[in-house]
Amino acid sequence: MNAAVKTSGKGESTRGAVLSHALALASEVGLEGVTIGTLAERATMSKSGLFAHFASKEALQIAILDEAVSRFVAHVVVPALKERRGEPRVRALLKRWLAWAKADFMPGGCVFVASIAELDDKPGPVRDRLAASQKDWLDTLATAIRIGVDEGHFRKNVDPKQLAHELLTLAYGTHLIARLLKDPATEKRLAIAVDRLFDSVRA
Amino acid sequence: MNAAVKTSGKGESTRGAVLSHALALASEVGLEGVTIGTLAERATMSKSGLFAHFASKEALQIAILDEAVSRFVAHVVVPALKERRGEPRVRALLKRWLAWAKADFMPGGCVFVASIAELDDKPGPVRDRLAASQKDWLDTLATAIRIGVDEGHFRKNVDPKQLAHELLTLAYGTHLIARLLKDPATEKRLAIAVDRLFDSVRA
Repeated sequence: MNAAVKTSGKGESTRGAVLSHALALASEVGLEGVTIGTLAERATMSKSGLFAHFASKEALQIAILDEAVSRFVAHVVVPALKERRGEPRVRALLKRWLAWAKADFMPGGCVFVASIAELDDKPGPVRDRLAASQKDWLDTLATAIRIGVDEGHFRKNVDPKQLAHELLTLAYGTHLIARLLKDPATEKRLAIAVDRLFDSVRA
Repeated sequence: MNAAVKTSGKGESTRGAVLSHALALASEVGLEGVTIGTLAERATMSKSGLFAHFASKEALQIAILDEAVSRFVAHVVVPALKERRGEPRVRALLKRWLAWAKADFMPGGCVFVASIAELDDKPGPVRDRLAASQKDWLDTLATAIRIGVDEGHFRKNVDPKQLAHELLTLAYGTHLIARLLKDPATEKRLAIAVDRLFDSVRA
């Protein structure tokens, strides 16, 4: 279940449990809000206990991002790759992303969206890790779209990177606005936008 | 220049200068990162001096949002309303929003985008003020689009709220990704997406 638990043993499983708390906290307050102090409170552990697992706030933040990426791959990418190549797979990626953004383990919504605005002005390894995760996600979408062109589902002149950008930014923008306005119409608007986008590129 | 300076007098102009610092800081670290302490450092003022202007962190955050809304109206809405009714005005709103998101007085980008992810889980007057500002912006876009339908620029069956949602979320999502990836292609992708969207609704 928990991708961070790679080996057995109490140390590793405690680390996994702590990372679950940390991921939930980061989804609510953003990565920058997760400190050894706030996490100790959330996980009801001592600060010194946490320091045994994460030497610094930065190491903790990178561990949270690695955990988030592992779960993203498990919940979004791997199941979508089992779908039929082409439009069904692209649609599965989006559908699973929507479920991801509402997952119980992220009560504050997608941890990536929650963290981008905070980290964009803070150069360093945490920001780099976040940027790499988003490039990978854009590439995954673009690859699925390119396969859709090859399979004859989408028109030959479709630019996979362009369409990936449009799908991702519509989804991220909607996620922001939906969480702020709590307006049930917002998600329906994303579905309409995505349908129109697919209609416009279908072969 | 500064909409917060409504009356003359040293107190009000100091307040305006402090709000300029506060807005710049909020664009970088988000509204939640602006405290009486961090702002005192940025504005090289004493904390007690700041308390004379803003009784609490919450009052300060609301004052920053009010200042941002005043500038948004002055930089985006008012100039666009001088453009010809219909598509030219909708395009002017978008063009000016892009300039807004790069304004010198917000070195970290649009303060609204920077704050939504932080505040969406924090009920209270600051979140309410932010939500109201975004509803107003969506309504401004939708009204301009509705005029575009009336003027015969857009098709009769265009849903102004839907198109406003799509334009805003494409712009906000692109703003997040562009600031994270620093990829010059990103903004061009928004322009392509917006052109295609206009092409799809034009009468």
